[in-house]
Amino acid sequence: MNNAGLDVFFLTLGAAMVLAMHAGFAFLELGTVRKKNQVNALIRVLTDFGFSTIAYFFIGFSVAYGIHFFAPVSELNIIGGTANGYEMIHFFFLLTFAAAIPAIISGGITERVRFWPNALATVLLVCLVYPFFEGLVWAGNLNFQSWLTTTFGYAFHDFAGSVVVHAMGGFLAFGAIIILGPRKGRYSPDGHTIAILPSNIPFLALGSWILCVGWFGFNVMSAGTADAASGLVAINSLLAMVGGMLAALVVGRLDPGFVHNGALAGLVAICAGSDIVHPIGALVIGIAAGAIFVFGFQFIQNTLKIDDVLGVVPLHGVCGAWGGIAAGIFGSSAVGGAGGVSLIAQLIGTVTGVLIAIGGGLLVYGLIKATIGIRMSEEDEYHGADLSIHKISAYPEDDMNH
Amino acid sequence: MNNAGLDVFFLTLGAAMVLAMHAGFAFLELGTVRKKNQVNALIRVLTDFGFSTIAYFFIGFSVAYGIHFFAPVSELNIIGGTANGYEMIHFFFLLTFAAAIPAIISGGITERVRFWPNALATVLLVCLVYPFFEGLVWAGNLNFQSWLTTTFGYAFHDFAGSVVVHAMGGFLAFGAIIILGPRKGRYSPDGHTIAILPSNIPFLALGSWILCVGWFGFNVMSAGTADAASGLVAINSLLAMVGGMLAALVVGRLDPGFVHNGALAGLVAICAGSDIVHPIGALVIGIAAGAIFVFGFQFIQNTLKIDDVLGVVPLHGVCGAWGGIAAGIFGSSAVGGAGGVSLIAQLIGTVTGVLIAIGGGLLVYGLIKATIGIRMSEEDEYHGADLSIHKISAYPEDDMNH
Amino acid sequence: MNNAGLDVFFLTLGAAMVLAMHAGFAFLELGTVRKKNQVNALIRVLTDFGFSTIAYFFIGFSVAYGIHFFAPVSELNIIGGTANGYEMIHFFFLLTFAAAIPAIISGGITERVRFWPNALATVLLVCLVYPFFEGLVWAGNLNFQSWLTTTFGYAFHDFAGSVVVHAMGGFLAFGAIIILGPRKGRYSPDGHTIAILPSNIPFLALGSWILCVGWFGFNVMSAGTADAASGLVAINSLLAMVGGMLAALVVGRLDPGFVHNGALAGLVAICAGSDIVHPIGALVIGIAAGAIFVFGFQFIQNTLKIDDVLGVVPLHGVCGAWGGIAAGIFGSSAVGGAGGVSLIAQLIGTVTGVLIAIGGGLLVYGLIKATIGIRMSEEDEYHGADLSIHKISAYPEDDMNH
Repeated sequence: MNNAGLDVFFLTLGAAMVLAMHAGFAFLELGTVRKKNQVNALIRVLTDFGFSTIAYFFIGFSVAYGIHFFAPVSELNIIGGTANGYEMIHFFFLLTFAAAIPAIISGGITERVRFWPNALATVLLVCLVYPFFEGLVWAGNLNFQSWLTTTFGYAFHDFAGSVVVHAMGGFLAFGAIIILGPRKGRYSPDGHTIAILPSNIPFLALGSWILCVGWFGFNVMSAGTADAASGLVAINSLLAMVGGMLAALVVGRLDPGFVHNGALAGLVAICAGSDIVHPIGALVIGIAAGAIFVFGFQFIQNTLKIDDVLGVVPLHGVCGAWGGIAAGIFGSSAVGGAGGVSLIAQLIGTVTGVLIAIGGGLLVYGLIKATIGIRMSEEDEYHGADLSIHKISAYPEDDMNH
Repeated sequence: MNNAGLDVFFLTLGAAMVLAMHAGFAFLELGTVRKKNQVNALIRVLTDFGFSTIAYFFIGFSVAYGIHFFAPVSELNIIGGTANGYEMIHFFFLLTFAAAIPAIISGGITERVRFWPNALATVLLVCLVYPFFEGLVWAGNLNFQSWLTTTFGYAFHDFAGSVVVHAMGGFLAFGAIIILGPRKGRYSPDGHTIAILPSNIPFLALGSWILCVGWFGFNVMSAGTADAASGLVAINSLLAMVGGMLAALVVGRLDPGFVHNGALAGLVAICAGSDIVHPIGALVIGIAAGAIFVFGFQFIQNTLKIDDVLGVVPLHGVCGAWGGIAAGIFGSSAVGGAGGVSLIAQLIGTVTGVLIAIGGGLLVYGLIKATIGIRMSEEDEYHGADLSIHKISAYPEDDMNH
Repeated sequence: MNNAGLDVFFLTLGAAMVLAMHAGFAFLELGTVRKKNQVNALIRVLTDFGFSTIAYFFIGFSVAYGIHFFAPVSELNIIGGTANGYEMIHFFFLLTFAAAIPAIISGGITERVRFWPNALATVLLVCLVYPFFEGLVWAGNLNFQSWLTTTFGYAFHDFAGSVVVHAMGGFLAFGAIIILGPRKGRYSPDGHTIAILPSNIPFLALGSWILCVGWFGFNVMSAGTADAASGLVAINSLLAMVGGMLAALVVGRLDPGFVHNGALAGLVAICAGSDIVHPIGALVIGIAAGAIFVFGFQFIQNTLKIDDVLGVVPLHGVCGAWGGIAAGIFGSSAVGGAGGVSLIAQLIGTVTGVLIAIGGGLLVYGLIKATIGIRMSEEDEYHGADLSIHKISAYPEDDMNH
């Protein structure tokens, strides 16, 4: 029996499932934006994945882990003493996480961002900002984790990336959205919020479903090897998803957008502690996340007047941070968790991630805005990104008949 | 080598694939119902999964198997002497089956059922009715299987749930549909059937495709452990699917609804005997199922005047029962099967399941109707469940332009 | 530990993922054709899979590998000394490749081909033409590979079917399209090309996404057993996909059809050498494939006036042939590849496949045209295949309101 082969199989499925999640991001966004921006949503999410791959392959992965692939195939297959090219599928799996950063941000800045400047931001974030924090948490860089362990007894625990991926993506989006400003017509001159309705609930729901299913690859395969696969991670992801969905159903008054995003809110929040909390703890974490999402969505859009189109700041940002902290609460053995976690270390790790994200987002998008510009012209925005940028609409045959 | 890790991996994929099938149920229903009920179809199927999870986690699973998860994580990981939290992923896998019950019923009662009463029915069915029969067949409860074995030589064989899941769901739907009555306008006062056309064939087809692909997780992973994975189960599922699809193509005269549901009919029928029949037997089982579905659909809708919107009674109910019986015929070694099966035991097991389902459906939905009511008001039904219940249509942006 | 069980698990996932790709083919075609032919696209792709299963099960698989399944179950489970019915899941996995042949062709001949004559072509191709070349390359039939090895030092290397599947399908389509002729109105009498616009970019994109994700099953599971699973195959598939997507983005000027098909072009081209080329070689192969697809698409449609609706000749045919040759270039150890490959053998293998495909396509479709006819009547084509053949449109409810 060759464990390396099994582990490559294990991570191939993980990578394929999280790759599929990017289709989920695309359709969630497509369904939420107006028809005139659907093609652009599809192309940005797809090509952001492509740009992320290039960025992470050539630079980002070595920033985080110090590993690169500039050697003949015979050497690549046995990096670090593994076999079957394990480190290459490990790269692919971790890339699908890194590429989630622009996919998350995309939902916040959609309907008004220029194509190539956005691609540039993607490259900068996936080369530098994301892998910097990823390396702190998951590769032990700069002794961040060993300092926490020495000081508080335990390292910052983020099993599958509530903070490393989701809070990072969500709060990077916060900076980007601030820099970009709201869509034309989103807020009236006298400060009222004007509803911009989603175009297509079935596609929104399809995106959510794909994300939900793929998430079990995101979480379970975060174990890295088949030997370490954990039924606890799976059941916790399930219960947090259900908790988020049902809380959003009730708090969001049966609204389809809230319900389908509520399931995701629960999944965002459970990533960090899915390997240590009790299933009932996971359910509570998910319920809280679903409620946080609904209230956070309304607060940021209507009170703060920040035009976060898909609500990625509350969904990934706030629920991700909640997940990082919640792992410190519900992971404790006092509430039936597996223990081995410190609430203070969780707070420090989470806050560190959020600060890097907010700073990084303001910096990267601010620099791009100041140099080459980041926002579509008013006329292009009015006509929609599909016709302006891609010279075609989402339903070209229909246009011909009008 | 750690077999428990591999088995958790195995069932994680099974659970994810059957979870995906619930998206399939949602889109199959969305494509078949009228536009004004699409959002409701999506939300009901999604949240029925959520309610089922709660019901099965806290009650249903212990009704069937006597196992619960009310212990610290350290104990959950090793329930029954397994490792890696195997029993928790086993729960998740079996939950995706349990949750298929409301998903199946949903297709029969759609376009007129109230939201919360339906959720209550889901909880009752997944807490009690389904796990009761599941426990009889798969956990040996009440000595049902040992009595069959003693009396007829063999237990009731239902490998992946033709009867336990599909006939149960389909005939529960039968009771529910009778209780609910037909949609307004489905049958004219003088007894004619009035066509209510599906809204969206591409989404219907998408749902069918997702179900077909996920079904290979449903059947193959029913082995429970990777060691027991069987190529025979896979090829039999394939050939039954193809048989059902092609039979429905011919009998249904190239109609897309029949073809896409015909594939599912074959898959429903092969679940029970997929581990024991010969591939050519599986093909025959599937062909019969495809024809049964088309004729059954027309018979129930046009002759019996029962408004089973998606045809779940013939699809899951009748084809599921056919699968239970067919395992007793084609599983015999006389026709190249693996043997170890008794036609009489198959008949008894199947009839028992069907009777429990019809009784349970009439009882649960009848009780709810008699107490809190089960059916939408005429006005709500006229306006559609989307606007009535969810205050939004499936394509909100379009509405604004009309 | 039972390796056979693990390998059945491995190939079950591979088969399920490539089965899903057929849904991808269906939606890619549905999104590209006009609305009046969407149902037909769905049904043809689905039932072509069904006809292929029958053809390959009863004839094609034994043409290629000399193995059949006409024995009792007890013998099927241990064919060739394997266990757990490995050979049956191996059949299923290889069937999903065989069935890709009609799925590829479908995109070229859509919107004008008759239903049953097309089904006949599917059966002939999957019974005879495809397995003949498949057997030459993958089963060592007729000493084709041993002759190449003796003469040029190495056999023709086609790991996952750039030539065996894709160039074969693409060039079979070439013959079929020539025989069928262009759609009515595609070229004006004075030789101008008239745009026929796609109906639905979101469904086109959905199809592409499903194909991309499923492709990792196509390539990685081509290893046949979990022990042989290779991270190199996965990362190479990833980088070729990204290369194709980004090249098509630039060359195709941000057009959604080009971008989403460009990713597929890279994946087509990497199949052959994914187990031997360096990841950067894979990226270059993908970039070239993306550019080849865009230029090839425009050349064949506008210059050659061949009405290849989805561009399957450049996509699968030309990029597949490029992949066969590229494996001989980038697989060389001189450029960091794993070596063990001969450029001349690659050229001979590729050209042999292309010639068999062109000849086979002209022959099969020519014979059918000459005998029972292959093309829809002008009136049926005008009204669309959906109403003409299936008596229903893709959005029946909408029709009723018009």
